Amino acid sequence: MKAKVLVTYKPGVLDPQGQTICEFLRNRGESRVCDVRIGKLVEFELEDMPREKAERMLDDIGHTLLANPVIETYEVVLP
Amino acid sequence: MKAKVLVTYKPGVLDPQGQTICEFLRNRGESRVCDVRIGKLVEFELEDMPREKAERMLDDIGHTLLANPVIETYEVVLP
Repeated sequence: MKAKVLVTYKPGVLDPQGQTICEFLRNRGESRVCDVRIGKLVEFELEDMPREKAERMLDDIGHTLLANPVIETYEVVLP
Repeated sequence: MKAKVLVTYKPGVLDPQGQTICEFLRNRGESRVCDVRIGKLVEFELEDMPREKAERMLDDIGHTLLANPVIETYEVVLP
């Protein structure tokens, strides 16, 4: 079973890497790009288990290990 | 319009960060986690445009700017 946790900066937290990509694209003529934000993608290969259990486990992992709760937030994505 | 590009290592490319998280989780007793791989998440805020155009633009950005084609692959995720 594959699952993802997406870790992103909270709104208001500066993201120089995203800004740099955004400026580069605008300088290249991509005026349709309004904003870019960089985050972390964590892909899990899990044993088969009920969806609900997997969600609870990944929520716990996201909370305690992957995201810094001061500046980051996370989202669990199950197939 | 929001869209994402997910950049991941190709299969076979070593990912020490993912391995470390995986080992930590197993030592913590999470034996249901088989594998962990780390990637980059790039979130785009785009002007409203046809889905097809957005996909083509992000595919081009992923190919030329975000992923290193030797070791990485990418996936465009539109809402």
